[in-house]
Amino acid sequence: MSTLEFWYEFASTYSYPAAWRVDRLAAAQGVKVVWRPLFLGPLFHKQQGMVDSPFNVVETKGRYMWRDMERVCQAEMLPFRRPSQFPRRSLLALRLALVGARQGWIADFSRGVYAANFGQDRDIGDPAVLAQIVRQVGGDPVADFALADSAEIKAELRANGEEAEAKGLFGAPSFLCPQGVSGGYELFWGNDRLEQAIAWAAAH
Amino acid sequence: MSTLEFWYEFASTYSYPAAWRVDRLAAAQGVKVVWRPLFLGPLFHKQQGMVDSPFNVVETKGRYMWRDMERVCQAEMLPFRRPSQFPRRSLLALRLALVGARQGWIADFSRGVYAANFGQDRDIGDPAVLAQIVRQVGGDPVADFALADSAEIKAELRANGEEAEAKGLFGAPSFLCPQGVSGGYELFWGNDRLEQAIAWAAAH
Repeated sequence: MSTLEFWYEFASTYSYPAAWRVDRLAAAQGVKVVWRPLFLGPLFHKQQGMVDSPFNVVETKGRYMWRDMERVCQAEMLPFRRPSQFPRRSLLALRLALVGARQGWIADFSRGVYAANFGQDRDIGDPAVLAQIVRQVGGDPVADFALADSAEIKAELRANGEEAEAKGLFGAPSFLCPQGVSGGYELFWGNDRLEQAIAWAAAH
Repeated sequence: MSTLEFWYEFASTYSYPAAWRVDRLAAAQGVKVVWRPLFLGPLFHKQQGMVDSPFNVVETKGRYMWRDMERVCQAEMLPFRRPSQFPRRSLLALRLALVGARQGWIADFSRGVYAANFGQDRDIGDPAVLAQIVRQVGGDPVADFALADSAEIKAELRANGEEAEAKGLFGAPSFLCPQGVSGGYELFWGNDRLEQAIAWAAAH
């Protein structure tokens, strides 16, 4: 079975529709999705010298993006509310996602976090908000928060960041397909490229 | 008849497939296209402080873009050769496009300039290359180059830049549709948004 790696960051706006589309569209083509959480801030800083979202740094680009998100979410029938705070702290949610990968609820949890942040304007940096989502997807907040805080999970998230950099990622969402033209994989960037990425994975 | 304004810059990579798609896709929806040449360098500098293409400034993003362009052009059956020089000087070509707008050959000329730059790796900053394209589309290089160098045409290109900034543009290709949610128009950015922009124009 072909696989597609879905690299995402909870602070990333366009990762929201991608997260809600990827499993359904991939399944329709017989492609398996591997969810890869990525802490993007350090990579943005290292590659582009940025210490804030590019949508905050360039005001006119940010204004466009929020309007575009409205349209994209409307077309996908996804609830959208512009977050009153942007970007929100994503580190704990990303570590919890890695816990969810071990326990089988990473996809449900991740979609829940996106819906909270961009559909309901809830603070996904708040442990209470995240605990509620963990419970909703069948996790155990006490044990899962403890594991999320472990050296092992922290190292795993850092390793994801190093792998992302090594494979040429520079933003989210990104899709990595096996058997690309260089380095043994093929990279696609952006919610707009999801269909092409799935087609590539299915064909190779 | 609905209209769609197509804002483009000859140095912009993704404007190449957009330029080759826009008339055909718009005509199929009964939408008229108005070609709006834009000198993007000053706007990039003013809004984002950039003095070079963002694809040169952030190396990993540039590497991805060139591979993506290969794929996009292949899907559209457009010839593609990575230019040996990027970005190329576009100012004279943009002024000639405005001359072409008065004489009815702006679309053919613009498609020819993109094909030369991104399909054949020819220097579109070279007047001899541009003169050849002007002749091919039925223009008269001597008279048209003289008009392109006039104060009137120079002012028109500057006015396009000011209008673009006022309407929230920050890159190319961009599409402006009438009757948007704010300011009387709706903005779409990127070759990937061409279909949505046409649908918007057709519906309003």
